Amino acid sequence: MDKNILSIINEGLHDDLLVLFAHMNAVDIADVLEHAETGKAVEAFRLLDDALAADVFSYFSVEIQQLIVDSLTDTEVTEIMEDLPIDDMVDFIEDVPDDVGKRVLDSVSAEKSEIVDRILDYPEDSVGSVMTTEIVELTPELTVREALNSIRASGVDKETIYTCYVVGSDRKLIGVVTADILLYSQLSEKVGDLMDTNVIYAEAGDDREELANKFSKYDLIAIPVVSRSGQLVGIVTIDDILRVITEEDTEDFARIVGVNPSDAPYLKTGVFRHAGNRIIWLLVLMLAATIVGAIIETFEDALTVLPILMAFVPMLMGAGGNAGAQSSTMVIRGMSLGEIDIPDVLKLVWRETRIAIICSVILGIANFIRIFLMYDQNHTLAWVVSLSLTVTLVVAKAIGCTLPILAKVAKLDPAVMAAPIITTIVDATAVIVFFAIARMAFNI
Amino acid sequence: MDKNILSIINEGLHDDLLVLFAHMNAVDIADVLEHAETGKAVEAFRLLDDALAADVFSYFSVEIQQLIVDSLTDTEVTEIMEDLPIDDMVDFIEDVPDDVGKRVLDSVSAEKSEIVDRILDYPEDSVGSVMTTEIVELTPELTVREALNSIRASGVDKETIYTCYVVGSDRKLIGVVTADILLYSQLSEKVGDLMDTNVIYAEAGDDREELANKFSKYDLIAIPVVSRSGQLVGIVTIDDILRVITEEDTEDFARIVGVNPSDAPYLKTGVFRHAGNRIIWLLVLMLAATIVGAIIETFEDALTVLPILMAFVPMLMGAGGNAGAQSSTMVIRGMSLGEIDIPDVLKLVWRETRIAIICSVILGIANFIRIFLMYDQNHTLAWVVSLSLTVTLVVAKAIGCTLPILAKVAKLDPAVMAAPIITTIVDATAVIVFFAIARMAFNI
Repeated sequence: MDKNILSIINEGLHDDLLVLFAHMNAVDIADVLEHAETGKAVEAFRLLDDALAADVFSYFSVEIQQLIVDSLTDTEVTEIMEDLPIDDMVDFIEDVPDDVGKRVLDSVSAEKSEIVDRILDYPEDSVGSVMTTEIVELTPELTVREALNSIRASGVDKETIYTCYVVGSDRKLIGVVTADILLYSQLSEKVGDLMDTNVIYAEAGDDREELANKFSKYDLIAIPVVSRSGQLVGIVTIDDILRVITEEDTEDFARIVGVNPSDAPYLKTGVFRHAGNRIIWLLVLMLAATIVGAIIETFEDALTVLPILMAFVPMLMGAGGNAGAQSSTMVIRGMSLGEIDIPDVLKLVWRETRIAIICSVILGIANFIRIFLMYDQNHTLAWVVSLSLTVTLVVAKAIGCTLPILAKVAKLDPAVMAAPIITTIVDATAVIVFFAIARMAFNI
Repeated sequence: MDKNILSIINEGLHDDLLVLFAHMNAVDIADVLEHAETGKAVEAFRLLDDALAADVFSYFSVEIQQLIVDSLTDTEVTEIMEDLPIDDMVDFIEDVPDDVGKRVLDSVSAEKSEIVDRILDYPEDSVGSVMTTEIVELTPELTVREALNSIRASGVDKETIYTCYVVGSDRKLIGVVTADILLYSQLSEKVGDLMDTNVIYAEAGDDREELANKFSKYDLIAIPVVSRSGQLVGIVTIDDILRVITEEDTEDFARIVGVNPSDAPYLKTGVFRHAGNRIIWLLVLMLAATIVGAIIETFEDALTVLPILMAFVPMLMGAGGNAGAQSSTMVIRGMSLGEIDIPDVLKLVWRETRIAIICSVILGIANFIRIFLMYDQNHTLAWVVSLSLTVTLVVAKAIGCTLPILAKVAKLDPAVMAAPIITTIVDATAVIVFFAIARMAFNI
């Protein structure tokens, strides 16, 4: 952050600002205005011409966006909003109170507000909710010359002109042609002869995370979105998908460790909000751990006879909990990358069981050596611990890989069934298995 | 996967295949060939024309790529490799044995092999290693007409023509102009007057994860890469960045639960490989848990007097471990998104301490009520547990947010310092704090 620019804004030196802004891009202007004094930031924002103002506006945080809208006149709001791309306008309206959203919608043309309304109607995680409707649409009978002229004439507010979509009768999507194909071709050729008819497309109702996988798989820059009847209704561009992927991954990271996901960056979230996002799981886990504690209490008789047993409980719980978390996280990640799906569940359990057995044999051997050396060559103890370890690991990995799948079957986010809940189930299992085996082995 | 196509390939019905392939895109052709019998897949691959063959080749897994190269003649290898984009060739050569790589490099022009060699020299996580050198380069004195002709003439093998870079003398990068600007402008205008001179660029030696954040921040589709002296050496396109982000996130997911990251998809990795990726951490954790067990043993006297204490150990360890994992994961994610950096460490500790206190007050109250009801209104026990909980949570969250920062200072991946190691430290702390407080409170 350049301190000079900041002080120029705060001192209100408008002439200097205009010179500076001419050499900056919209992202950096938004960035520096976010850090300036609020009143001065609004003043400086007013200096920008409409197109740049709309661009800068789209990069502001929603707090500043709302502040700006509140301090502008209706005419000024109209000027910015007419230049704001559809998808940025949708993002803004989704995040502000209804009355602000209504004022913004009223400020634009009926046509634009209708389109925004339609996109707002799509479910939050659907393709429709992230698409934009600013597309270059061609028809197959156009020549390359006509197509280029039509692109040129369609104005600069199209989200991407790199990929142009070709529609037939009823606005049904029939092909795609990229700008480079048009540029490399003779001006007299027909769009219909140049277009690729193997179009990869998405339906507006599809899940946006699956769409992200389609982008990766097919190396796409943009994807056309069609209605259920095949009509072209919009596109999703890769920069929006990048945001979707980042958001979805951030959510998964949070859920895996039992934190309620939130959109705001870490340092911009208050401590009470942070605490609130984390406390539910800590409470649930405390309750669950209490249950494990109660289970241990029921084995008090065994512990009185052989207090040494207690020394192995943290190790068994730790190994089990961690093994389960490894499996669940690998499966959750595989599912969000589209590598694993519900029908794979049996394959998964079989794999994870074998992995658990391999791991537990190695852990068992290490443990056997340790007990043999440290506890007077106590064979029985070594066997009890090693056997418990194997059972715990198999259970942990089987549960770890099954629960995320079950979550998906129940249409929950697989990450909800993550490490914390699995740890709890596995901890209880580890304790019960261990004491049960110990009781048999030592006749207590 | 279409079973019909698969059987047509396996039966070697080449005429039918040619018809089918004409209606498929490269990704899907690669996909279906991957699933066919190996010999038949190579036969079918030979049917493709050079450009499509190169495209299909770039989507194969490295195993199939190597198999194809091994079964082709030198001339055939040359034909495909000359059509293969630089970055896909680099990816391939990085993954195959040296002799295969050498054969491929020998098959292409000296110019192309020199460029590939240069990219291979960049460190694995650098911007240079993911860039490609196929760029549209313009000079400022060209007119729009000349620029469009030059783009048209430069052939279809450029990675993207959407963004064109303008270089001055010494090939230094001086501006950028997008295809839509060229298309919307008068044919007689000069590139130098249309170009944007506020170019966002990367240096070849920069870290590729930081580059990913730059793409998100500035909504980029491609970024020019310059040498240390400012000369244009290549570009990185957003589809490659999408792959980088997915890879880095997948690595972080694995590391957070103590799994050694691997590039291969879950279901394509053998069980022994899976077990190998997970066993190191399980062994380290078992050792660490053994230490915690040993610590518990040293408090055997206290446990003999008051065996009930043991029932609270799992709860304390669970709450502490989980609270620490929450903090570390939030900080790791914040760091990889570029929201948190090393200088924020004190701010982080102060925030996390407050979060810990808020959470532990709530957990403490819940716990107090429970103990009061379940354990004959034992005030002292309730205080001991609640106090231990607070100390454990503060320590857990402070360690949880500090270790990832320390890792970054030591130039390690912050995710290495993740949940498992933090859990272990916190478990030991929880046990020691709890028994120390209990001893004082109960005079044992």
